[in-house]
Amino acid sequence: MRRADRRRQEDGLERAAQALQRARSGDLTGLRAILLGADLPVVVDELERMAPAQRTTAFRLLPRASAVRAFQMLAPAVQADLLGELGSRDVSRLIADLDPDDRARTLDGLDHDLARQLLAGLPEDQRAKTQRVLAHEPETIGRWATPELVSVPKDATAGEALRAVQEGIGAAETVYVVPVIDPDRRVVGVVSLRRLLATDPEVPLASIMREPISVHATDDQEIGANVVRDHGALAVPVLDDEERLVGLFTVDDAMRVLQLEEDEDSARTAGTSRLVKPYLSTSVASLVRSRIAWLLILIVAATLTVNVLDYFEASLEQVVTLALFIPLLIGTGGNVGAQAASTMIRAVAVDDVRFVDLPRVLGKELATGVALGAALAIVAYAPARFFTDGQVALVICLSLVVVCALAATAGGLIPLLARRFGVDPAVVSAPFITTFVDATGLVVYFLIAGAVLGL
Amino acid sequence: MRRADRRRQEDGLERAAQALQRARSGDLTGLRAILLGADLPVVVDELERMAPAQRTTAFRLLPRASAVRAFQMLAPAVQADLLGELGSRDVSRLIADLDPDDRARTLDGLDHDLARQLLAGLPEDQRAKTQRVLAHEPETIGRWATPELVSVPKDATAGEALRAVQEGIGAAETVYVVPVIDPDRRVVGVVSLRRLLATDPEVPLASIMREPISVHATDDQEIGANVVRDHGALAVPVLDDEERLVGLFTVDDAMRVLQLEEDEDSARTAGTSRLVKPYLSTSVASLVRSRIAWLLILIVAATLTVNVLDYFEASLEQVVTLALFIPLLIGTGGNVGAQAASTMIRAVAVDDVRFVDLPRVLGKELATGVALGAALAIVAYAPARFFTDGQVALVICLSLVVVCALAATAGGLIPLLARRFGVDPAVVSAPFITTFVDATGLVVYFLIAGAVLGL
Repeated sequence: MRRADRRRQEDGLERAAQALQRARSGDLTGLRAILLGADLPVVVDELERMAPAQRTTAFRLLPRASAVRAFQMLAPAVQADLLGELGSRDVSRLIADLDPDDRARTLDGLDHDLARQLLAGLPEDQRAKTQRVLAHEPETIGRWATPELVSVPKDATAGEALRAVQEGIGAAETVYVVPVIDPDRRVVGVVSLRRLLATDPEVPLASIMREPISVHATDDQEIGANVVRDHGALAVPVLDDEERLVGLFTVDDAMRVLQLEEDEDSARTAGTSRLVKPYLSTSVASLVRSRIAWLLILIVAATLTVNVLDYFEASLEQVVTLALFIPLLIGTGGNVGAQAASTMIRAVAVDDVRFVDLPRVLGKELATGVALGAALAIVAYAPARFFTDGQVALVICLSLVVVCALAATAGGLIPLLARRFGVDPAVVSAPFITTFVDATGLVVYFLIAGAVLGL
Repeated sequence: MRRADRRRQEDGLERAAQALQRARSGDLTGLRAILLGADLPVVVDELERMAPAQRTTAFRLLPRASAVRAFQMLAPAVQADLLGELGSRDVSRLIADLDPDDRARTLDGLDHDLARQLLAGLPEDQRAKTQRVLAHEPETIGRWATPELVSVPKDATAGEALRAVQEGIGAAETVYVVPVIDPDRRVVGVVSLRRLLATDPEVPLASIMREPISVHATDDQEIGANVVRDHGALAVPVLDDEERLVGLFTVDDAMRVLQLEEDEDSARTAGTSRLVKPYLSTSVASLVRSRIAWLLILIVAATLTVNVLDYFEASLEQVVTLALFIPLLIGTGGNVGAQAASTMIRAVAVDDVRFVDLPRVLGKELATGVALGAALAIVAYAPARFFTDGQVALVICLSLVVVCALAATAGGLIPLLARRFGVDPAVVSAPFITTFVDATGLVVYFLIAGAVLGL
């Protein structure tokens, strides 16, 4: 993002935040005016940044329609906090106002008894719709499928379909994509509202509908979101195991799924788990829990490097200056490995590279690693000569080339192997590569040192 | 993504790829059947994986409508390759079939003379529309704004607006969001097609239109995409500096922008630049170029660690076992710093945390770092005792606590500072933190060693 834009956006947000800050100290009329004037996403951001009690006060000031929309946009953990603070009448009304799929995700984040109680308090048809959504596994498309749609039978005409849309328009979440179904609710086609409007009313649907691009309710949410993105679709039909229509998965939900997955990937890449609440509302204990697991694994793995150095301790004692370049060498190896891994994780994620391409990847990464290592060795020669003698400098430069080649190759290989064995590449790659490069890098260094210096 | 889903998806792709592989070896009829049977995104993936000559052959086999849609989905660098292989008549026809905003992005990727020549070959109105898109800076919303839309005057009725939509439906890229304009083309509202259909034709537009959520043509593309995502909009009006309507920015383009930005962020986090072509089509020279810059900067910075060790060389000579734990110590520090930085980069990106929150961030990260360091020190005590004596083990454990505290604090601080000074946090954080933690970690280690061991 360019600097000027970022600044302009930031200034606006900063002003809104400061106004809210002032208003928090008791001036409810002022706060209400600000909340009504602000863009809904800004209101949501501010709500997530507030302490729970302030958040409840601010939320109560929102008009009903905005309150429902803002609530839908909050993180589920924040929704749960908020429901805990609101009175039970407010809670029931809010839950009743949500769309069935949003409601299901909210109930998921709540205490089991409270969720059951709220579900029981819903009108019959809304309860049934919500229960159908809840019957699907979390993180599947079924959880995001809205049952509130307009579908038309396959023997209808364009005009009949358009009338069906106009009749169903009040209750439907979207009407821009209209599934065409057979008597068993199997989806035989899809027609866009645009097409319906552009077509003579007498034309039969069968001649204007497209092949449906559909997803299954049991599919992982990320697969469904990728289908929507790759096809540039506004919504896709969601089918059950017998290929019958369950609902529609809409593009705004697809974007939310992709954002959640991006949060998760970026957390995994650094060896942490995704925070369920915004950072400022997350306790130190939760931060520690989200990070400790990988650190423990990595520190146990790092004792490998201690072992390697212990094995070569005699060489170290003879030439202590060898120790001076250990951090530079393994740091550089780690960087080269991380670069290769990051490129490969992305290439695997967007399906540019598959397991069958392994030989080509190894060839490319080996060549790239050698080239990078050679360039870095030239740069490192001067400091190596300054701090050590000519022979040690030679050891350092040779080691750089070998370590970079190894690191790039491992960085390219590990994500492909992880994917092959059904492990998320983002989870294992960075930690595995660091450990691999540190341990093998030291072995390479001391073997080369042994050969060159005759240790 | 769950394993079963991933497998199922992979199997399907694998089969398609193998079928294509077989077909490549000359069986054009077979290849055509496969291309026609496959989902368009799969075809695009396969085209991007093919060698240039094969790609051209396969592309020629696509029916004209699919060819245009597939072409729009290719990476611009691959588009340029393909245009270089196709005959000039095919190229002109393909370029003429594109939407103006897609055409502008394609022309951008081409040699300047060729682009000008292709532009000159377009029909008058398409040339004018494309030139207007090209007048905007790259990576701004203006480059994604489609001028092919339906807008209606503010004094129209719902029925008149609906008729305008039906008349314009053939040429427009989207008709689901209809900007309402005044005589100067200033956007005074927005009405959805859904609203138009649900409203009595006699009702004046002014009473049903919503406040427009709009973006400016000069805005950064990422800002615009975030606006679309945060509001769950299908399209938003794009305005010029005088607030006049330039075009619409649609949700499918917003998703493409977010994907590009995600590519870029993931590359930056690891200190590389984004590849402009799919991995398998990228040469070793390009891979080296995308990675060498940061490695050179980092290896120069890493000489700091050599300096530190050189300064403490006397201590190292006295107690060589201190060297055994150097990789473990700075590796752990680097991991803790990377975790904190990754959490903070994400929190800054989604605006959960701003510069004013700096004190709270520092407090949280310091506490988290100390807690993590203490837990890791307990685990590290056993190997430390095994490889060294009790006093050195104490040095190692104390150093772990201090280094983790420093690393977490730096990891939290650096992204906030980067953002404040207008630098993309993802660019500087990982490298800065590694270097900072390596150098300060060593200083801490040897100072504690000096104090405890009396060196």
